[in-house]
Amino acid sequence: MSRPRKSTHIREKLISEGTELLKLKGYHGTGIKEILDRVNVPKGSFYNFFESKEKYVAEIIENYNMEVLKEVDTFIEKSSRNPLEKIINAYSYVIKEIEKTGLTGCLVGNLAAELGDSSKECLFQMKNGVKLWKSRFVSLFQEAQEKNLLRKDISAENMADIFWNSWQGGLLRMKIEGNTEQLEMILDKLLNTLFRN
Amino acid sequence: MSRPRKSTHIREKLISEGTELLKLKGYHGTGIKEILDRVNVPKGSFYNFFESKEKYVAEIIENYNMEVLKEVDTFIEKSSRNPLEKIINAYSYVIKEIEKTGLTGCLVGNLAAELGDSSKECLFQMKNGVKLWKSRFVSLFQEAQEKNLLRKDISAENMADIFWNSWQGGLLRMKIEGNTEQLEMILDKLLNTLFRN
Repeated sequence: MSRPRKSTHIREKLISEGTELLKLKGYHGTGIKEILDRVNVPKGSFYNFFESKEKYVAEIIENYNMEVLKEVDTFIEKSSRNPLEKIINAYSYVIKEIEKTGLTGCLVGNLAAELGDSSKECLFQMKNGVKLWKSRFVSLFQEAQEKNLLRKDISAENMADIFWNSWQGGLLRMKIEGNTEQLEMILDKLLNTLFRN
Repeated sequence: MSRPRKSTHIREKLISEGTELLKLKGYHGTGIKEILDRVNVPKGSFYNFFESKEKYVAEIIENYNMEVLKEVDTFIEKSSRNPLEKIINAYSYVIKEIEKTGLTGCLVGNLAAELGDSSKECLFQMKNGVKLWKSRFVSLFQEAQEKNLLRKDISAENMADIFWNSWQGGLLRMKIEGNTEQLEMILDKLLNTLFRN
C-alpha cells in the first residue's frame, strides 16, 4: 500500500482542525493563523492548499455533510427495523455524543446563522447539507407513516422539516441554557406525541 | 420639554446601528469602527459610551429583547380575542415584516449560534430573551388549551418551546434557502394541525 502524500495529510488535518474551530468560534471568530498553528504548518503556506478562506470553509462544510451522512447511514443500517425507532435511536445517540464531546451544535446551523447569504460558496454547501439530511429522513418518516406509526394528515416532508427546524432551535437553546433538555423534549414530544397516529 | 443630551442620542444611535449590523454580520463580523463610522462618531470615543464590545453587545441584546416584547405586547393587545389567532396573527405579521425588511433572522438566535457560552454577559441576555418571550407565549398557548382550541396531552410550555425552537430553525432555513416557506409551513402545520385538538 502506498503511503499518502504528506500534502494530502496536511490538507486533511487543516479540514478536521478547521471543523472543530469553526463549530466553536464561528466563521469570523476563527483565524487562519490559529488553525495553521494547531496543524503546525508555517504561516503563508495556507494558500498552497486553499484558494481563499471562503473556499476552505465551503470545503469544510462539504466534508462535514459527508461525515454526517456516513454516520447516519451506518446508524440506520445497524439500528432497529422500525423506522420510527431508527430516528429515535439515531437522535438519542446524538444527544449522548453531544453530552460527551461538548455543546457546540451543528456546523451547518451555526454558519447559516452567522453568514446568512454573505458567502455563495458556503451557502451552496449548507443548502446541500439540508438536502442530504432530508434525503435520508424523509424516507424514514414516510416508511413510519406507511407502517401506521405516524399520522398521515401532514406529509413526511413536512415532518422531517419540522423535526430539522426544531432540532436546530433546540441546539440554540442548548447553547443558551447549557444543557440538552430541549433536545430531549423535542425528540420525545415530536416523535412520541405530536407526530403519532 | 428638555432636549435629550447629545450623548444620550449618540448612545441610542450606537445601539440601533449596532443591532442592524450584528443581525447582518454577527459578533465577530461586526467591527466597532464600522458602527462608529455609521453614527459619525470619532474613533476612540466608543469607550466613553461602553466599557467593552462584549458589554455593548449585551446591552444591544437587552434592548432588542425589550423592543420585541413591546411589539409582542402591542400586537397581543390589539389583536383578536382568540389566543390562537393572536399567535397566528403575530407571526404572520413577523413573516410579512421579514419579507419587507430582509432575511436577517433573530438577533438572539444568531448570536447564540455564533457565541455559544463564550460570553457570559451576552449569554445572560440571550437567556433572558427566551424567558421574556416565553412569559407571553406560554400564557397564550395555555389560554388556547383552556378554550379547547389546542390539545392538552402536551403542556403549554412544551408547545411554546417547540414553537420557538422550530421558528429559530425556520429562520436558519430562510437564510439558507432565501425564502420564508419554512416559516409559513411551521406556522400552519404546528398551529393548525399538530397542536390542534
